[in-house]
Amino acid sequence: MDEPALRRLLEDVRSGTLSADEAVRELRRLPFADLGYARVDHHRALRQGLPEAVYGPGKTAEHCAGIVAELLAEPGGPVLLTRVNDEQADAALSRNPGGVRTGSTVVWRRSPERSERVMILTAGTADLPVAEECRVTLGAFGYQPHLVADCGVAGIHRLVGELDELGEADAVVVVAGMEGALASIVGGLTAAPVVAVPTSAGYGAAFEGVTALLAMLASCAAGLAVVGIDNGFGAACAVARMLGPGPG
Amino acid sequence: MDEPALRRLLEDVRSGTLSADEAVRELRRLPFADLGYARVDHHRALRQGLPEAVYGPGKTAEHCAGIVAELLAEPGGPVLLTRVNDEQADAALSRNPGGVRTGSTVVWRRSPERSERVMILTAGTADLPVAEECRVTLGAFGYQPHLVADCGVAGIHRLVGELDELGEADAVVVVAGMEGALASIVGGLTAAPVVAVPTSAGYGAAFEGVTALLAMLASCAAGLAVVGIDNGFGAACAVARMLGPGPG
Amino acid sequence: MDEPALRRLLEDVRSGTLSADEAVRELRRLPFADLGYARVDHHRALRQGLPEAVYGPGKTAEHCAGIVAELLAEPGGPVLLTRVNDEQADAALSRNPGGVRTGSTVVWRRSPERSERVMILTAGTADLPVAEECRVTLGAFGYQPHLVADCGVAGIHRLVGELDELGEADAVVVVAGMEGALASIVGGLTAAPVVAVPTSAGYGAAFEGVTALLAMLASCAAGLAVVGIDNGFGAACAVARMLGPGPG
Amino acid sequence: MDEPALRRLLEDVRSGTLSADEAVRELRRLPFADLGYARVDHHRALRQGLPEAVYGPGKTAEHCAGIVAELLAEPGGPVLLTRVNDEQADAALSRNPGGVRTGSTVVWRRSPERSERVMILTAGTADLPVAEECRVTLGAFGYQPHLVADCGVAGIHRLVGELDELGEADAVVVVAGMEGALASIVGGLTAAPVVAVPTSAGYGAAFEGVTALLAMLASCAAGLAVVGIDNGFGAACAVARMLGPGPG
Amino acid sequence: MDEPALRRLLEDVRSGTLSADEAVRELRRLPFADLGYARVDHHRALRQGLPEAVYGPGKTAEHCAGIVAELLAEPGGPVLLTRVNDEQADAALSRNPGGVRTGSTVVWRRSPERSERVMILTAGTADLPVAEECRVTLGAFGYQPHLVADCGVAGIHRLVGELDELGEADAVVVVAGMEGALASIVGGLTAAPVVAVPTSAGYGAAFEGVTALLAMLASCAAGLAVVGIDNGFGAACAVARMLGPGPG
Amino acid sequence: MDEPALRRLLEDVRSGTLSADEAVRELRRLPFADLGYARVDHHRALRQGLPEAVYGPGKTAEHCAGIVAELLAEPGGPVLLTRVNDEQADAALSRNPGGVRTGSTVVWRRSPERSERVMILTAGTADLPVAEECRVTLGAFGYQPHLVADCGVAGIHRLVGELDELGEADAVVVVAGMEGALASIVGGLTAAPVVAVPTSAGYGAAFEGVTALLAMLASCAAGLAVVGIDNGFGAACAVARMLGPGPG
Amino acid sequence: MDEPALRRLLEDVRSGTLSADEAVRELRRLPFADLGYARVDHHRALRQGLPEAVYGPGKTAEHCAGIVAELLAEPGGPVLLTRVNDEQADAALSRNPGGVRTGSTVVWRRSPERSERVMILTAGTADLPVAEECRVTLGAFGYQPHLVADCGVAGIHRLVGELDELGEADAVVVVAGMEGALASIVGGLTAAPVVAVPTSAGYGAAFEGVTALLAMLASCAAGLAVVGIDNGFGAACAVARMLGPGPG
Amino acid sequence: MDEPALRRLLEDVRSGTLSADEAVRELRRLPFADLGYARVDHHRALRQGLPEAVYGPGKTAEHCAGIVAELLAEPGGPVLLTRVNDEQADAALSRNPGGVRTGSTVVWRRSPERSERVMILTAGTADLPVAEECRVTLGAFGYQPHLVADCGVAGIHRLVGELDELGEADAVVVVAGMEGALASIVGGLTAAPVVAVPTSAGYGAAFEGVTALLAMLASCAAGLAVVGIDNGFGAACAVARMLGPGPG
Repeated sequence: MDEPALRRLLEDVRSGTLSADEAVRELRRLPFADLGYARVDHHRALRQGLPEAVYGPGKTAEHCAGIVAELLAEPGGPVLLTRVNDEQADAALSRNPGGVRTGSTVVWRRSPERSERVMILTAGTADLPVAEECRVTLGAFGYQPHLVADCGVAGIHRLVGELDELGEADAVVVVAGMEGALASIVGGLTAAPVVAVPTSAGYGAAFEGVTALLAMLASCAAGLAVVGIDNGFGAACAVARMLGPGPG
Repeated sequence: MDEPALRRLLEDVRSGTLSADEAVRELRRLPFADLGYARVDHHRALRQGLPEAVYGPGKTAEHCAGIVAELLAEPGGPVLLTRVNDEQADAALSRNPGGVRTGSTVVWRRSPERSERVMILTAGTADLPVAEECRVTLGAFGYQPHLVADCGVAGIHRLVGELDELGEADAVVVVAGMEGALASIVGGLTAAPVVAVPTSAGYGAAFEGVTALLAMLASCAAGLAVVGIDNGFGAACAVARMLGPGPG
Repeated sequence: MDEPALRRLLEDVRSGTLSADEAVRELRRLPFADLGYARVDHHRALRQGLPEAVYGPGKTAEHCAGIVAELLAEPGGPVLLTRVNDEQADAALSRNPGGVRTGSTVVWRRSPERSERVMILTAGTADLPVAEECRVTLGAFGYQPHLVADCGVAGIHRLVGELDELGEADAVVVVAGMEGALASIVGGLTAAPVVAVPTSAGYGAAFEGVTALLAMLASCAAGLAVVGIDNGFGAACAVARMLGPGPG
Repeated sequence: MDEPALRRLLEDVRSGTLSADEAVRELRRLPFADLGYARVDHHRALRQGLPEAVYGPGKTAEHCAGIVAELLAEPGGPVLLTRVNDEQADAALSRNPGGVRTGSTVVWRRSPERSERVMILTAGTADLPVAEECRVTLGAFGYQPHLVADCGVAGIHRLVGELDELGEADAVVVVAGMEGALASIVGGLTAAPVVAVPTSAGYGAAFEGVTALLAMLASCAAGLAVVGIDNGFGAACAVARMLGPGPG
Repeated sequence: MDEPALRRLLEDVRSGTLSADEAVRELRRLPFADLGYARVDHHRALRQGLPEAVYGPGKTAEHCAGIVAELLAEPGGPVLLTRVNDEQADAALSRNPGGVRTGSTVVWRRSPERSERVMILTAGTADLPVAEECRVTLGAFGYQPHLVADCGVAGIHRLVGELDELGEADAVVVVAGMEGALASIVGGLTAAPVVAVPTSAGYGAAFEGVTALLAMLASCAAGLAVVGIDNGFGAACAVARMLGPGPG
Repeated sequence: MDEPALRRLLEDVRSGTLSADEAVRELRRLPFADLGYARVDHHRALRQGLPEAVYGPGKTAEHCAGIVAELLAEPGGPVLLTRVNDEQADAALSRNPGGVRTGSTVVWRRSPERSERVMILTAGTADLPVAEECRVTLGAFGYQPHLVADCGVAGIHRLVGELDELGEADAVVVVAGMEGALASIVGGLTAAPVVAVPTSAGYGAAFEGVTALLAMLASCAAGLAVVGIDNGFGAACAVARMLGPGPG
Repeated sequence: MDEPALRRLLEDVRSGTLSADEAVRELRRLPFADLGYARVDHHRALRQGLPEAVYGPGKTAEHCAGIVAELLAEPGGPVLLTRVNDEQADAALSRNPGGVRTGSTVVWRRSPERSERVMILTAGTADLPVAEECRVTLGAFGYQPHLVADCGVAGIHRLVGELDELGEADAVVVVAGMEGALASIVGGLTAAPVVAVPTSAGYGAAFEGVTALLAMLASCAAGLAVVGIDNGFGAACAVARMLGPGPG
Repeated sequence: MDEPALRRLLEDVRSGTLSADEAVRELRRLPFADLGYARVDHHRALRQGLPEAVYGPGKTAEHCAGIVAELLAEPGGPVLLTRVNDEQADAALSRNPGGVRTGSTVVWRRSPERSERVMILTAGTADLPVAEECRVTLGAFGYQPHLVADCGVAGIHRLVGELDELGEADAVVVVAGMEGALASIVGGLTAAPVVAVPTSAGYGAAFEGVTALLAMLASCAAGLAVVGIDNGFGAACAVARMLGPGPG
């Protein structure tokens, strides 16, 4: 309920179109739909500039399908179903045609294309699933990120060919497990915003991503924006916040 | 040494202006000055779009003064000395006139003013020193952030009056200790990029900022960009990356 | 063995009805039944005002059934079997008819209805199993809690419609994973006792509930009562302690 | 801004007493006073039923005095200044006469006496400062808690003399460091609500209160309400929530 | 190679019965048998007073059987195979007849009975497997421990009937998960040596036994001897060390 | 209140010497003295076979002196004041003459000499203060332990000369920081009970004793009895429990 | 691109053989092959003196086979595929004949034999898989390490027979779980470089190798070189770095 | 007591020069000097190839001086006193002339110069004290390491000028705090042995060196040899082990 709406409502009260009781009731009418098992937030996209996203784990296939249906019932931007298993994806896609599944993410109502340049770099091949989640989410927003895999610091020269593109990127996402040093290197090489995503890939003392997470937070390259472990979706959302609502 | 410079150098070799030996030597001439105790990086500002910053702790007052002098010896953008004690600040200011100290930060060569709107919110009064470091660093870049203190979630209505400004901000920095919940709330209320800074303020189970750090990383508000504990400088740098080099 | 009973026993000794040896033996007769594999505590309900509860994991189906039978053999209040698998539930229900299973909890001898108003709020849909355990346990005590799911802080307006009920509740249970911020918000909005239950739902840096647990303990909202991770049963018991034995 | 106030405001708009613009402004007028360095929340007491409390650490003596003054400027309940040092206490008391300091806590406007019975038990002598903070805070609310020190489980018989009082208490606070086992014992002996406060007292493997905190959260006595380490103030607030606003 | 043996060897050298070279070789002849995959230590029983024990996990069934065979090939005390699965137990028993399996432990060559009184107490039913490992290991040494299950502190009166026996025990083993408070209580009630075994049983904040482990180490009851999580075998060995080699 | 006393009391009731009311009062008369700030437990020595010990930190000098005086007021065994500072020691010694201070421990009423052989080994010189606390506490019990310092595993041959004594010891205490490996070595060399005390000495990755603590708990030498970090007093109490009350 | 190559390239530019544009392109030609899913680093062996190794987990069988094929397409040293499952090994071996699988490691193009003496010691039988990975990797380099299993510190005499060989070894790898004390012992007995590999073998308080890792890092034996948990491959690489490229 | 000495001793017994009793006594004569407070190990240098080093913290100035004197009393290699304060250094130097103090390290009897090339790199200026300890210790062994400070990954080009030297080094020590990424970069650029030393320098999420330690252990550059936090001495010893006893 934004300010113009509030002002209009008050004018209606003043003009007698609306009684005080009705106004109170109206003020209580919140912009979400209560499905019993979920409260679908129809205004999140407007408020946060982010897609409507449904996190799959812990939900039944029916719940997934139902929440997606509710979100698509109102006009709006892209709708995502993330970290799905096959059963959830099948149920959601069959009830809500038009979705596209890539890996563990399903997207409906992709946004129009945008022209900003976003790079996604991974340190190793094992970081690809997280990078894919990020790429697909950015795709739902209309971006067409360039994903460069396997350019970790053990062979730092593999990054050199990307220097020009790094310098011109509007945003860079670095996806790395193990010790996560790639984020520090990239942060030192570009002035663009850098979102660092630690992954749970690794062994020895990687501790399921905790080492990479700490290393990224303690990076000597200033101004890295860190998100949670394996959170490719969150990284995409951080980029979307940075690049704003676009010309449209 | 960017691509045009390399191309020019190669043309000089081709034209005979430069011998191969000289070119090798030239390619080795790296853009830093070696003071023995520090290697001052004269091109970081260009490469990263960030100010030259000297972190005080663990350096002698003389070293602080010397590194700042070296950085100011070349033309460029703002120079910062952070987390200084009085002795370091005095030595650096006396050798390098023109600096302005605010709290534990000293700034030389402030950038021209920029018009983007940056908000800094703190959860409590105890978070102010970290917020100040962020504000002063942003000020060195030319920003004039609006700092709103003490609007933590225990009295969430204190945030309501800021909703319009939050909605129109180009970037928001949330500085919070304890359980850091303010970052989640703000992230749910605005589409702007949100940089979350956990602080070491708190007691009970705050664990010197670890609780706030974890809570911000696990936030249910998508797309928060988290930096390290008490890292107001880093948060400002993250904002600077996001808002880019500016029209100039 | 409470004071009046002790006094009576001593009078019996004084009057010669009981010899000293018999009295010693009597004093040794403890109010539990030793089944070999378990010592069933028949007086816990009186002593603690809590239901007799049997925790399923690690017990054989036969043991579960046997302990429940022993508890039902004496008159008393509700008896619960918690975190059961199908085999345990089947064995216990077939040996002890009259139980009602809801999710992973089975209840026998539900207490008479009570009129206090208890709210259970969850931050997300994934927190529902823990909220259900809490709701069923409260139901065994006679309460009819109002469960409101999925009103986490990413869309804080979903909570606004509950403000009146929050203000009038006799007790509120907040069930939340991820960063657990909902507990802080609710604690800031109501004067009622608030029991905060961290859940293991979440990803990124949720660390199986540890982040939510720490955040609730470090909450800037004063006076939150925190229980262990996923401990919906414990939260219900905390509410039962707070609301007391009731008028009956 | 509660519902009746909102209804009145809307009636004023309807009747023309208030223009829509004025109403919007009014709705924006939030019940806090912005001192610049703090946003004093004048309605917290109503909303949460808790005292207005100012946490000393990290605030200047002037800020402490100023915030207390602002809180006392409006009629209301008790005002507390907690964890003060001498300078803060002196400044606050000299600007705001009528306060009473006990240990590190200062209280103004003590509430009228209440009759509920609250017990505070400590495991050892070293837990006393935390217990004192709890006792003084409860005193500000009008309670007169009975504090029993040094009855830890190494000599569990010291607790036996308190059994009757434990059985009749309206609330019990257990303050314990080391392994915190006293909370489990007390929880097993009484049906009253039990608030468990881990303290940082101890050595060997007490880890500054973490061991006691974990032990209380994992207690086999169901329904313990745990607060943060050394948080005597929080424990008192939890009790205040449980016992409610009182007959007055 | 103990001192008398060394003295004898030196006398043989002196008398010419043994050449220096032979003596060096003899001194090198170490009291173990190298099976390639294991170095079986034939003198551990003499040196440590403990049974020969083979830890099953990570060994093939053939290796288990082979090591047991080697140990039984020399005369000596009891031989144990611990934490076996069915395949390991079957292989070992079929190659080495005469063993007795109880739970996950197999024992060969049980020691003659001993008369010392050892009590094993468990806090809950879920602690029984660990207590059983302890009981069987003590049985291999000749002890006949009295195992009392399920007398945790939530119903501390269940322990009262055991007070006499506790007072007269030569050693007490307390097996407890959750918050492990039973060890503190028992330590406060008896002068006997108390070995505390934390178990991984529990939920909420039990953290796989870490909470119980820390609580036992930080116990306010002085002189508890703590072993590792779920280490019933280790607890039995600690008791065996305490009670010594026996009269025989 | 042991069984014979209870029996006597009941006979008195039976014979009419004692009324039921008096008996109840008598049963309530607990064997401790309530000093207000402490509940002095006069029967702990009998119950636990341990000395009366007062832990200094967190107590005023007056409290230390008062508690010691109360303990000495009744006949009994040794009384200890541990971890004292100079002010506490002076106050306690001046009010209670006859005490002997060694390091941070003061002992009154040393027990008669005992003949059991106790060895204390330290890995390094930095472990000596903890070993001293253990030695002095054992001395209060009447033992005359043999303390061998600085025989850590980096030069394992320094231990060889102690092998005979190790083999004949009635109990061995190993005090070690860093990685605590000495406890494993000693445990592998002797059949005697071994109490392992981790110390906070060390650097690199010693983490204030946590590394040594974990290593001792995970030792491959079976049956080590571990106590908390730097807990020399606890180790002595563990030895006292093991060696029992002695012939007297 | 080493210095001579750069010099040659510049000469070519100078002589006109190469245009500036061509030179820039040439300088960009990086020594890796981009397979899309991986960037195969053809010069790592030269640069690091280590084998080309492909880490199996998280890669498809096809990717494994493809990367190995790419590595074998260029002449060079040994190629390893590590931590493979059967499917990965089969695919890689069938596409790239000539590989030899041992346990979870496959080796192609073994280096010629080298004469340095490398010992691998394990504390227990359960450490063997890690030791095997180390042995096979060293074998790929041409070494023929001597593996001595099961000589942990609980029976330290089992190590004595290895003393001569330890003294003459060019490098020693110690593989140990539990408390990892064997590394300290060996470090105290030899002047050779010692690489310590903690393993996840163990129970009680071994915490999946963390205890052994910390103990090895905090070892009182100076100069131990520690690698990550279970990282037998890394230990072999550390040895390879130490012993250098060999005479060839 | 090495093998030739044992053989000689046995010959003396055989020839009657030595009685069996004398031989036993001789075998017991261990190569250390017992000062009461320390057991000085005169053969460590021979056995481990490392200098005799005395760790200052926790020792009195007199003990430091005495242990150094004992070590110098026998002929041998370098003697070090590390992490000294002024009082310890003064006492040790005044009793043992000829020592040279650098920072917190004092060296006596420096070894003759060696020709191997050792590089020490630090990520930042704050890492210098640790690098200095390493440099001075290597100096005591006769090495003349080249220390290059402040070439962390935020400006990775500062490392480029060192590439040739890195390629030719016999060993490289990398000293880095924060996220420790420099070790990974260097490990990827050189085939030389790399010893990685995490330091406690840093802020944000550096956690006193734990982040750098974990990152180095989880490095994607294979074969890094990691030592404990701030352990410059240990790193030097690791290098000494690698480079061996030298030609002399």
